Formats: sequence, C-alpha cells, structure tokens
Amino acid sequence: AGDRAAGSAKATQCQTCHGRQGMATMPGVPNLAGQSDVYLAAQLRAFREGVRNNEQMSIVAKSLSDADIENLAAYFSQIKVTVGAD
Amino acid sequence: AGDRAAGSAKATQCQTCHGRQGMATMPGVPNLAGQSDVYLAAQLRAFREGVRNNEQMSIVAKSLSDADIENLAAYFSQIKVTVGAD
Repeated sequence: AGDRAAGSAKATQCQTCHGRQGMATMPGVPNLAGQSDVYLAAQLRAFREGVRNNEQMSIVAKSLSDADIENLAAYFSQIKVTVGAD
Repeated sequence: AGDRAAGSAKATQCQTCHGRQGMATMPGVPNLAGQSDVYLAAQLRAFREGVRNNEQMSIVAKSLSDADIENLAAYFSQIKVTVGAD
C-alpha cells in the first residue's frame, strides 16, 4: 500500500485544482477526498497510459511513478469524508 | 439545471455500486456525493459517447437522456459532504 505522508507531500502539486484536502474548488474538477485508493490509483494509471484523457491530467500523470500513484491514492483515500443529512 | 428530485428517483439504479447517498461501497467505484454537477454531467456524457470507458458505466450511460444526466448531476452534487480532521 502507499505511503500516506509521502502522498501528502506529493499532493501539494494537486491543490491548485483539487483544493486543500482534496475538496476541489473548480467546478469541473472532482473531489479526491475519501475516494477509494483502488479507484484513485486506477484513474491515475489510466491518465498516465492514455486510457483516460484530460488536458491537465494527461500531462500531470505522465510524470508520476508507480510509487507516487500509490502514495497519492493512500493520502486522498484516507481523508475522512462524511455525508450530511440529504 | 437538473431536477434534484427526479435525479434522486433515477439514482436508485446507481445505488448497487455507488451506494446510498453516493458513498460507494465497492473499492473500485467512486463516491458521487458532493462531486460538482459540471464534473458528474461531463463524465456521464463521456461514458455515453465512449470518450471514457468502463465496463458497467459504458452500458448504463447509453440509456441516459440529457435530462437524466442533468438530474443525476443535480442530485449527487447537492448531497452535503464534509471533510473531517485530516
């Protein structure tokens, strides 16, 4: 499994779009907080391999190592998210 | 903008994978709760048009109308999500 602290450090580069603690501030950008590590890692790999495409993410993901991906997934997935009353 | 009540009704078909109130119970499946309506609608359209591919979602999205997409995006985006202490 990934290293959460290393992921937290790496995640500073994600904050511009995905916000602090993975709660996005830009409308078209997904929240990452509390997403499952399996899902997050799979999406980062998909962007890196061009299976999934997005202008920014396709570029960002190219620079990520396997360890970066596991660490980022560990970090964002472990942010506690609770759903309020509907 | 979408109709939240209509989206809530339509969302029953999403619960199997995305859970009640859009908090997924299966590891590889994303939470939808609190995601921006712009992002959710864009992803549903991407799945419908084959720009983004997933075994289940590519099938599910084919049956969604534009109104369904806007309503689902309205429903899931308006579920209140809060991030706990890191």
